[in-house]
Amino acid sequence: LEFFLGRSIAIEGCVVATHLTANSYGKSRVRLTKVTRTGDRHDLMELSVDVALEGAFEDSYTAGDNTSVVATDSMKNTVYVLAKEHPIEAIESFAATMGEHYLKTYPHVSGATIDIAQAKWARIQAGGNPHTHPFGGGGDEKRTAQAVCTRSGTKITAGIEDLLVLKTTDSAFKGFVRDRYTTLKETDDRIFATSISATWTYAAGAKTDFNKTFDAVRAMILETFAANMSLAVQQTLYEMGEKILASVPSVEEVAIVMPNKHRLLVDLKAFGLENRNEIFVPTDEPYGMIRGVIRRK
Amino acid sequence: LEFFLGRSIAIEGCVVATHLTANSYGKSRVRLTKVTRTGDRHDLMELSVDVALEGAFEDSYTAGDNTSVVATDSMKNTVYVLAKEHPIEAIESFAATMGEHYLKTYPHVSGATIDIAQAKWARIQAGGNPHTHPFGGGGDEKRTAQAVCTRSGTKITAGIEDLLVLKTTDSAFKGFVRDRYTTLKETDDRIFATSISATWTYAAGAKTDFNKTFDAVRAMILETFAANMSLAVQQTLYEMGEKILASVPSVEEVAIVMPNKHRLLVDLKAFGLENRNEIFVPTDEPYGMIRGVIRRK
Amino acid sequence: LEFFLGRSIAIEGCVVATHLTANSYGKSRVRLTKVTRTGDRHDLMELSVDVALEGAFEDSYTAGDNTSVVATDSMKNTVYVLAKEHPIEAIESFAATMGEHYLKTYPHVSGATIDIAQAKWARIQAGGNPHTHPFGGGGDEKRTAQAVCTRSGTKITAGIEDLLVLKTTDSAFKGFVRDRYTTLKETDDRIFATSISATWTYAAGAKTDFNKTFDAVRAMILETFAANMSLAVQQTLYEMGEKILASVPSVEEVAIVMPNKHRLLVDLKAFGLENRNEIFVPTDEPYGMIRGVIRRK
Amino acid sequence: LEFFLGRSIAIEGCVVATHLTANSYGKSRVRLTKVTRTGDRHDLMELSVDVALEGAFEDSYTAGDNTSVVATDSMKNTVYVLAKEHPIEAIESFAATMGEHYLKTYPHVSGATIDIAQAKWARIQAGGNPHTHPFGGGGDEKRTAQAVCTRSGTKITAGIEDLLVLKTTDSAFKGFVRDRYTTLKETDDRIFATSISATWTYAAGAKTDFNKTFDAVRAMILETFAANMSLAVQQTLYEMGEKILASVPSVEEVAIVMPNKHRLLVDLKAFGLENRNEIFVPTDEPYGMIRGVIRRK
Repeated sequence: LEFFLGRSIAIEGCVVATHLTANSYGKSRVRLTKVTRTGDRHDLMELSVDVALEGAFEDSYTAGDNTSVVATDSMKNTVYVLAKEHPIEAIESFAATMGEHYLKTYPHVSGATIDIAQAKWARIQAGGNPHTHPFGGGGDEKRTAQAVCTRSGTKITAGIEDLLVLKTTDSAFKGFVRDRYTTLKETDDRIFATSISATWTYAAGAKTDFNKTFDAVRAMILETFAANMSLAVQQTLYEMGEKILASVPSVEEVAIVMPNKHRLLVDLKAFGLENRNEIFVPTDEPYGMIRGVIRRK
Repeated sequence: LEFFLGRSIAIEGCVVATHLTANSYGKSRVRLTKVTRTGDRHDLMELSVDVALEGAFEDSYTAGDNTSVVATDSMKNTVYVLAKEHPIEAIESFAATMGEHYLKTYPHVSGATIDIAQAKWARIQAGGNPHTHPFGGGGDEKRTAQAVCTRSGTKITAGIEDLLVLKTTDSAFKGFVRDRYTTLKETDDRIFATSISATWTYAAGAKTDFNKTFDAVRAMILETFAANMSLAVQQTLYEMGEKILASVPSVEEVAIVMPNKHRLLVDLKAFGLENRNEIFVPTDEPYGMIRGVIRRK
Repeated sequence: LEFFLGRSIAIEGCVVATHLTANSYGKSRVRLTKVTRTGDRHDLMELSVDVALEGAFEDSYTAGDNTSVVATDSMKNTVYVLAKEHPIEAIESFAATMGEHYLKTYPHVSGATIDIAQAKWARIQAGGNPHTHPFGGGGDEKRTAQAVCTRSGTKITAGIEDLLVLKTTDSAFKGFVRDRYTTLKETDDRIFATSISATWTYAAGAKTDFNKTFDAVRAMILETFAANMSLAVQQTLYEMGEKILASVPSVEEVAIVMPNKHRLLVDLKAFGLENRNEIFVPTDEPYGMIRGVIRRK
Repeated sequence: LEFFLGRSIAIEGCVVATHLTANSYGKSRVRLTKVTRTGDRHDLMELSVDVALEGAFEDSYTAGDNTSVVATDSMKNTVYVLAKEHPIEAIESFAATMGEHYLKTYPHVSGATIDIAQAKWARIQAGGNPHTHPFGGGGDEKRTAQAVCTRSGTKITAGIEDLLVLKTTDSAFKGFVRDRYTTLKETDDRIFATSISATWTYAAGAKTDFNKTFDAVRAMILETFAANMSLAVQQTLYEMGEKILASVPSVEEVAIVMPNKHRLLVDLKAFGLENRNEIFVPTDEPYGMIRGVIRRK
């Protein structure tokens, strides 16, 4: 085994023994469109899949011996084959199916992590009715799923990425530390804009309808953002997390990341004008970055 | 005047007289958030403005004399000031207001071109009712306007950018040239995905409701894409253009650009599977690029 | 012919006759790596090619008749085939070869525009000597070429894109218009940072060594930026243009675009510190945008 | 304390107690240009700094009480102030200085993580000699540093990001698993292109010249890539890691990530041509993704 874990090399007169403490490899950004037809009605899924395997692959690192290596090109093929052979009801279950495939097929694989991001497409409407096969794109927002599959089981995490929201009031920020480095004014009324990314981890073996839960969590996040007065980005983040945990028993942990996409009030005094929270500059950087992980007690 | 248009320099023993045949300068990506309050209801506009001036600015180029130069920093300030002083009913009229401001204010300016892109925000719904002040982002799709203002008048062009659409059927491509360089198969049924950018130019002096026209044009583009069988991207593009010209008398020209965002059928034969238009690879490049300009006869 | 140029459609009771006034179509972002071997020494070119054709293609727009359509997929194939069949000595000549191929092959093509962007790769050095086959990437800077080929001849334009430079002094900006909209201070010493894009058009039939000229023009642009005091971005731009025209007789026109990538001095007074042009904030937007076209008199 | 860690909310008739298990917040993308003058010679550093704090901040999450919150706007100010007050000899030491500042200044901060990315600028040459103050941009390659500062000490990790390299030969890939999912051919001679990101972690308390080590590590990575035959991306990655560990005693761990930026051989048989490793298509996705962490035994 030692042979596979490292080797000694002599450089400048001294021998150094090294070893590989962690490794993984895989294929990223395997993109996929799946069309499912039910009579005239077509369903559309567009996914980007990342596959990463862990296992007894050290010999490819330390000896250039690829005997145990599943080519990343083959991983790409496997994504297409499994997408054809399985209905994709939800990306969460498809990620698990895919990860478990690697464990079943290759005895030397100890872990497979599958990450899927699903683009948002909505049916185009005609006179209030949805068309059967034309779709409009839904922007940067993505639905995500991760399955971490090992010999002891599969862990599923669902998520939403880049859910862009802004509210023009009901956001304050005051009472913070004031010292030498502080120039920011306290405010009772500011614009709150953020691009929410949230993930929620399902308890092992939880039975759940992934699609319904996704819709419910997305609605809770939006409604918490929209309806609650925000005293800090942190507070709004925590409220989202506890609402999700309170409503979805199968979820055991929620992690949320909320960048503060600042809108800066423009000073118009030099031009003889008063700016009563009317004109702002949206900025991309720098940005505040707020993170929190919330669990049940 | 000659002095301002060029000068002679001696390099390696020879004198070369050069002149400036065209120039413009300005400020790009001036971003702006405007909040307008009507009771509890807030309206939100987020714009990115580009200003470019032409005129008697040659001396800054040829002699480093900035006497006539309106600093681009001042242009940025002007965007904020005009946004505060004027209601922004539509970006088309705001672009014209802004361009005409430069002509009025600076006698040596001969032309001002203002380009505005407006981000898409939609009110977040609560129980079927729109909230008053929280908004959700609408993706990459942008509404655009351009005003080209000169001493002889203002020309207004409206537009939509990056309207992402896909249909899973009702698209064919056959009968094209077959020669040494052709490997593409003819097809009666392919995925048609594109990101539409269209602009429409208003006749000089046309009276129009820019917002209503924008909504109508957007709907016509979507419906033409969704409802009509496509025999080629070119055909669909032309149908969009003629529909707009037929419906909006104040528009005199429509220009449309449609990249063909290919979805390639995956060959699954090597894996013993038949792929009946189910599994595709979405690709970003290379892409087909179809352009057309359509006018009334 | 009329049939191909437009058609009449009846919408809401009125007949509107439209016609196609301009069109082009093609394939964009055809990427290509070419390796040329001379003994142990390998040469590497990485290109991105855009092909756009004009000609008698109206029937595909107005009637969905693709008889005259060269599929954009075939254009992609043609790029690979021509890259194999021809040595690519310079992207300028390869663009011309490619454009002229379409005119020769398809009688109904009236114009072909070929745009090529070449990525920058440099040989990795070992002990001061260049390796024969390993290369390091050169960043965003691109060499570009455009050939516009019609039945009356070929026009070649070369260029450089995104040449990022910055100097920490020898740049001033003063004497500009001061009015209600001006808050910018005059300065004798500022940072000047820009990402230069320049194109130069060769006179028809000019004999030139495109590679030598490219290297010479690039060096002139850099040296003009580095060595000359700048009184305005405009002035520096013009100096670059006249230097190129003075040195390269085969070039008839130079067009330069220089965004002003502002570095803003940070006000440290609130913290009891004086900022003597030491600490700046680099910003991406808004940015000044300076353009000029320079010809011989 | 409990109060700060969570709270109970009643939703739909049930009470759920939640708590915050992890949190951090900070300011990201604080960009900074520092000019240091030594006579006529100017030195230039352009950095992007991310600050993230951990500590007793739960009350801002769970109660909207910001008493302990250091505003992210103040963090931004702190970056500028510290950059002014300290010479920045290396980003590694500046990251440590900055992180330790937060621990010293705020007793309730338990940890500060500072990430810095430094853009690459090189002096423009004139006649073989470097200019004193004009610089040219160096592309996407970044030098990085991370300081993780806690009450028990500071851990420093240095790195390089997006070092783009390609070699046209001396790369093979064969002997890998062949099964139902395999279509890739074995090869003795392929293009190997990758964008290397590597980090190396210094042993606690190690005395080192960060700048010299950075230059040495960068050279070792390039030379290993260039000079060694590659039997797999994995093997090349491991060779880089062991070379660094063998040469730099103060480094205890090396982590390397190497995406395989595939160049696909174009099949030209349909056009009657043989492609002897001459014409390839560079692709962005999907891409292989190889990761390894290497330590001394």
